[in-house]
Amino acid sequence: MVTHRIALIPGDGIGQEVTPAASRVLEAVGARHGISFSYDEFDWSCARYAEQDAMMPADGLDRIRHHDAVLLGAVGDPSVPDHVSLWGLLIPIRRSFRQYVNLRPVKVFDGVESPVRGAGAMDLVVVRENVEGEYSEVGGRFGRGFAEEMAVQESVFTRAGVERIADYAFRLAGRRRGHVTSATKSNGIVHTMPFWDEVVAEKALSFPDVTLHSEHIDALCAKVVLDPARFDVIVGSNLFGDILSDLTAAVAGSIGIAPSANINPERDFPSMFEPVHGSAPDIAGKGVANPLGAIWTAALMLDHLGHPDAAAEVERAIADVLATTPIRTPDLGGTASTGE
Amino acid sequence: MVTHRIALIPGDGIGQEVTPAASRVLEAVGARHGISFSYDEFDWSCARYAEQDAMMPADGLDRIRHHDAVLLGAVGDPSVPDHVSLWGLLIPIRRSFRQYVNLRPVKVFDGVESPVRGAGAMDLVVVRENVEGEYSEVGGRFGRGFAEEMAVQESVFTRAGVERIADYAFRLAGRRRGHVTSATKSNGIVHTMPFWDEVVAEKALSFPDVTLHSEHIDALCAKVVLDPARFDVIVGSNLFGDILSDLTAAVAGSIGIAPSANINPERDFPSMFEPVHGSAPDIAGKGVANPLGAIWTAALMLDHLGHPDAAAEVERAIADVLATTPIRTPDLGGTASTGE
Ligand SMILES: CC(C)[C@H](C(=O)O)[C@@H](O)C(=O)O
Ligand SMILES: CC(C)[C@H](C(=O)O)[C@@H](O)C(=O)O
Repeated sequence: MVTHRIALIPGDGIGQEVTPAASRVLEAVGARHGISFSYDEFDWSCARYAEQDAMMPADGLDRIRHHDAVLLGAVGDPSVPDHVSLWGLLIPIRRSFRQYVNLRPVKVFDGVESPVRGAGAMDLVVVRENVEGEYSEVGGRFGRGFAEEMAVQESVFTRAGVERIADYAFRLAGRRRGHVTSATKSNGIVHTMPFWDEVVAEKALSFPDVTLHSEHIDALCAKVVLDPARFDVIVGSNLFGDILSDLTAAVAGSIGIAPSANINPERDFPSMFEPVHGSAPDIAGKGVANPLGAIWTAALMLDHLGHPDAAAEVERAIADVLATTPIRTPDLGGTASTGE
Repeated sequence: MVTHRIALIPGDGIGQEVTPAASRVLEAVGARHGISFSYDEFDWSCARYAEQDAMMPADGLDRIRHHDAVLLGAVGDPSVPDHVSLWGLLIPIRRSFRQYVNLRPVKVFDGVESPVRGAGAMDLVVVRENVEGEYSEVGGRFGRGFAEEMAVQESVFTRAGVERIADYAFRLAGRRRGHVTSATKSNGIVHTMPFWDEVVAEKALSFPDVTLHSEHIDALCAKVVLDPARFDVIVGSNLFGDILSDLTAAVAGSIGIAPSANINPERDFPSMFEPVHGSAPDIAGKGVANPLGAIWTAALMLDHLGHPDAAAEVERAIADVLATTPIRTPDLGGTASTGE
């Protein structure tokens, strides 16, 4: 019996409802595979912010630094500006723990209807750079309140940062169908994106069995709609990866199912696992949130913790429920509760 | 009889094939409305670059500065890096002539199949900021070839720049269904995007009859797929507008039909009209390019030149051909030639 110490941060809104569902699934699959979990739960959230003026305590990162993984529900509430809630919790964890890979698998399960014709065979992973790029603290405001007012923001791409995310994408593609699509915009964003292209292309030379295509983000978004089944691994910057993962999940008909993993491949810090859906204040508290996003996320965590068989079992269970039962939460057109 | 002087830049690839189709339509509709066109044609293109090492002559901008409008086919060829061809022609025209509005209407014509279920009622305009933002010359490379190499790029948003594009969007929405969606990413891009949001929200106060919603670009791209008919006017930065216009055109099933106008609303410089599709080297020279993008673009030009009736007639002709005849170029699943 192996025990993993998990830092559990249910967070806001439906995060409170989907994380218990995920931990029940983890108990069940763990029992079959000799894995147990010990949870430390943290109340870090917008609710905490309202009381204590901080999303997490000053030593928050130290408190979870030695856990094996962080499992997070959702962060965000209309009462707190998004950039406050996110830069007070999610983004510091991603950055301080060097979780430079944001992994978002997307596929169309049998029994889930995609809004896009021909999306049925879609099966891809978005590999998003997660700690640098367009999400940057460098910049600010000039001339506040005057006619000449302006805001500037620096995108920062480092060689090491682009190399390691490209490396991750090529390795992953090598274990899948051997194809990487790199999102770029080197025709418009003329300093950082040509650099991205150059470093990705150099890295491709080390992976002769993997093919690489670069596509401009505008055309790529169009192709995701027009020919979603053609993609295997899509690698993109922090911003482009963010856009592509939401878009591909929508095309697959499964925003409520989509999982994500914020991975520190070197394992010198814990990785963090969170469903793609947000806190969804509109349905929070009603018990109708789709737990499959959090459950699939738990499977990614199992895989990362060294239990690929248990992870595969959870994924199969998700596929089975969707393919063979009518149980669906309202986001998928059903009437089931989160608990069901 | 009024005569307009048009600078005609067919450009590369299928640009050479679709601009003649557009000018034939302009002749025909002009004859019925007492409008004539005198064209000065310019060979500015990647082909010119190959011979003369420049996309256009050094005094190129001066040569077209006094025309009433610029009609452009397409720019780009695999032999010339995109950032060279675009920053050598398209982008200098947009910027020097202060064409700060890039207007891209998207709708689903009867007889055109959208790849997305429920897109039939889609009818929107993307209003893209066209001269500042993420497409910036500020930035560069540090430590070239070394481990510490990095590239930085500054996004620059000015108060005047955001105000005038927001103003344009709200006015346009006032003449349409009264709804503006503003693309943002203020949760991730924490300096420029909160500024964008702030200036757009201030501007909204002057338009009490128009409603404003802001959506993060990731969620917005998802909603374009999930509920395309909900949008009226979408306003976005240079990059977000670029992404959204290709994506919305794809959702409408009509990349080959989509038009665009680069507008200088003050009319102190000519505006430029270009179809959204590129030079399409793969089909260039075969006479099968869809001319409807260029023809609809010509309608936008007519409208800008003060002939809304003639413009509406061209748009109706496009709708009629698609709704009542089987004539389709291959991109729409037919076998017609450009000329047909
Ligand atoms: C070619 C490129 C620079 C251009 C842009 O991004 O502006 C194109 O995508 C467009 O939309 O006109
Ligand atoms: C909430 C936001 C900052 C975040 C992001 O853009 O990274 C979210 O969209 C995500 O994808 O996890």
